[in-house]
Amino acid sequence: MNVLIVGSVALDTVETPHGRLERGLGGAATYASVAASHFSHPGIVAVVGGDFPRAHINLLKRRGIDLAGLQIDANGKTFHWSGYYESDMGAAHTRATELNVFAGFKPALPDSYRAAPHVLLGNIAPALQLDVLRQVRAPRLVLCDTMNYWISSAPREVGQVFRKVDIVCINEDEARQFTGAASLPAAAQALLKLGPQRVVIKKGANGVALFGKDTFFSLPAIPLKTVRDTTGAGDSFAGGFVGCLARARKLDEDAFRRAVVAGTVMASFCVEDFSCRRTCRATKRDILKRAALLREYTRIPKWKV
Amino acid sequence: MNVLIVGSVALDTVETPHGRLERGLGGAATYASVAASHFSHPGIVAVVGGDFPRAHINLLKRRGIDLAGLQIDANGKTFHWSGYYESDMGAAHTRATELNVFAGFKPALPDSYRAAPHVLLGNIAPALQLDVLRQVRAPRLVLCDTMNYWISSAPREVGQVFRKVDIVCINEDEARQFTGAASLPAAAQALLKLGPQRVVIKKGANGVALFGKDTFFSLPAIPLKTVRDTTGAGDSFAGGFVGCLARARKLDEDAFRRAVVAGTVMASFCVEDFSCRRTCRATKRDILKRAALLREYTRIPKWKV
Repeated sequence: MNVLIVGSVALDTVETPHGRLERGLGGAATYASVAASHFSHPGIVAVVGGDFPRAHINLLKRRGIDLAGLQIDANGKTFHWSGYYESDMGAAHTRATELNVFAGFKPALPDSYRAAPHVLLGNIAPALQLDVLRQVRAPRLVLCDTMNYWISSAPREVGQVFRKVDIVCINEDEARQFTGAASLPAAAQALLKLGPQRVVIKKGANGVALFGKDTFFSLPAIPLKTVRDTTGAGDSFAGGFVGCLARARKLDEDAFRRAVVAGTVMASFCVEDFSCRRTCRATKRDILKRAALLREYTRIPKWKV
Repeated sequence: MNVLIVGSVALDTVETPHGRLERGLGGAATYASVAASHFSHPGIVAVVGGDFPRAHINLLKRRGIDLAGLQIDANGKTFHWSGYYESDMGAAHTRATELNVFAGFKPALPDSYRAAPHVLLGNIAPALQLDVLRQVRAPRLVLCDTMNYWISSAPREVGQVFRKVDIVCINEDEARQFTGAASLPAAAQALLKLGPQRVVIKKGANGVALFGKDTFFSLPAIPLKTVRDTTGAGDSFAGGFVGCLARARKLDEDAFRRAVVAGTVMASFCVEDFSCRRTCRATKRDILKRAALLREYTRIPKWKV
C-alpha cells in the first residue's frame, strides 16, 4: 500500500439523460482508489454499513485495493447519495444525502497504513482529514481534493487543511468561492500563499490547470462522444493524479504534469459509464492511447513571426 | 492588402474596475485589423461619421492598415457603444448602442479589395457579410467571427453565412445557442456539418478549441496579472488568427494551429489595456515571447504507464 485514500465509500442512485444507476458503487474514496489502482497500490480509509454488497468489496479487492482501513459497521447503513444531471451533464442536482454510518465516522488507521508515503484527503469533513494527518508518519506527499460542502460550512478548517498539504486539488468554483478572487490565476496565487507547493484547478469539460508559484500548465479534457455520468470524475482525476505521483522518482514540475495527464485520462474513462465500470475496465493500452491523444490535442507546430 | 476585414469601426465608452475609456477607438474591424497588422496587410470595410477623430485614422494608417474601404459619412455620427464590466471581467453589460452611420451601412468594396485572398467577416449583420462575399473574387480563405446579436435575431441568415465560409469562429455560448447542442464537441460537429472545414470555439479565460472533422486542438489563454478591459479580445483573436493564416503556404492543420497561437497571443495583449493600445505597442519580440510561453504552458513531459 503506497497511497492512502480517505473519503466516502457510498451507494449512489444517479439519473442522467443516458440512464439510471440504482444504489451502485460510488463515493470519493471508491472513484479515487479505482483510478489510482492503475498506477499504484492504494488503501482506503472509510466506513460502510452492513448493507454494503459483498460484490462491491470483491470489485475493490480485485483492483488490488487495500481494505484494511475500511470499517464495516454491521448495524448501520451505508452512506447513500441520490441525484440527477440535466442534459448538459453540468452540476449534479442532489435529491437526497443519507449520511448513515458516515455521520459518526472516526477514521482509525490500521498500523499498516501509518507509514503510507502518499496521502489523498478526499471529499469528507476537514476535521476528519486533519485527524487522518495526525495518524500518519511523515508522508512524502499529501494532497487534498474538492471541499465544496465544507468551504461554506467550515471555511476555517478547510484553510487549516490547505496549510498542511503539498497539493490542493479543487474545482474552479470552489477556488473562487474560498479565495474570493475574480480570476483563476489570482485564486491559485491566493491558495499558494497558504503553503501548498502546487494548486490543481479542475474545470470539468474545460480541463485542468496546474499552478505553481512561477509555473503554469494547462491540459484540456478529452472530448468524448458520450458522457454518461460525470459523478466521480473529479475523484477519478485526483486518484489518477496521486497514483501517478506515487511512482515518480522526483516530485518536480514534470512529475506533476505527468500526473495531470494520468488524472485527465482516468476522468475521461470515469464519465463514459455509470459508477467506476469503465475505469475498472481500462487497460494499460487504453490509458496510453488517451495519453497520446492528449499529446496530439495540445501539439503546437513550429512557429515563427 | 491581403486580408479584407469587414466589421464595425466604433467609438467605445467602457468602464471596468481598472479604469474608464471615453469614446476611445473600438469596433470589431478595428481590433481585428490592428491584430492582423502584426502578421499581414489588412484592409478595412466599414463606415464612420464626421466626428471620427483624425488621430484614430492616423493610428490605423501607422499600422499599415488599408483604409480605401473605410467610408466617411461627414453628415453622420460614428457608431458608439457604451458598456461596463464587473470585477470578474466576464460578459460586457451594454449601457447604450448608438448605431448612427452603421444603421444604413452598405458595404461597397473598392476595386482594389475585390481580389483579397483572405476575408474576415467580423461581427456585423449577416446580410452585410453576405453582401461582402458577393463582391469578392474567389478568396483563398473566408472566416466569419462572433455573431451573438444575430444568432437570436436572424438565425437563418447566420446559417447562410456559416454555409459559405471556410472557418467559423464563435464564442462558446453562441455555439451552444445556435446548435442547441449540450456539449462543445457536439456543437462543433453540428457546425462542421454546415460546411466549414474548421470551427474555432473561443472560451475567454478558458482559451480556445479548434475542431476539424477528425481533429481537435486546444490552447489555454495566457494567464495575466492584470486584465484591464476584455473588449475586443475575441476580435483581436480573429485578427491574429487570419493574419497568421495569410502568411501560411498551405492551409493545413498545422497552419490553423499556428494561427490559434497567433490569435491567443494577440487577445492576451488586447485585454491588458483599454482600446487597442497594448496590441498596437506589441513588438515582434513580445509576440515571440508569448508564443514561447504558450508552448511551455502546454508542454507534456515524456510519459509512460
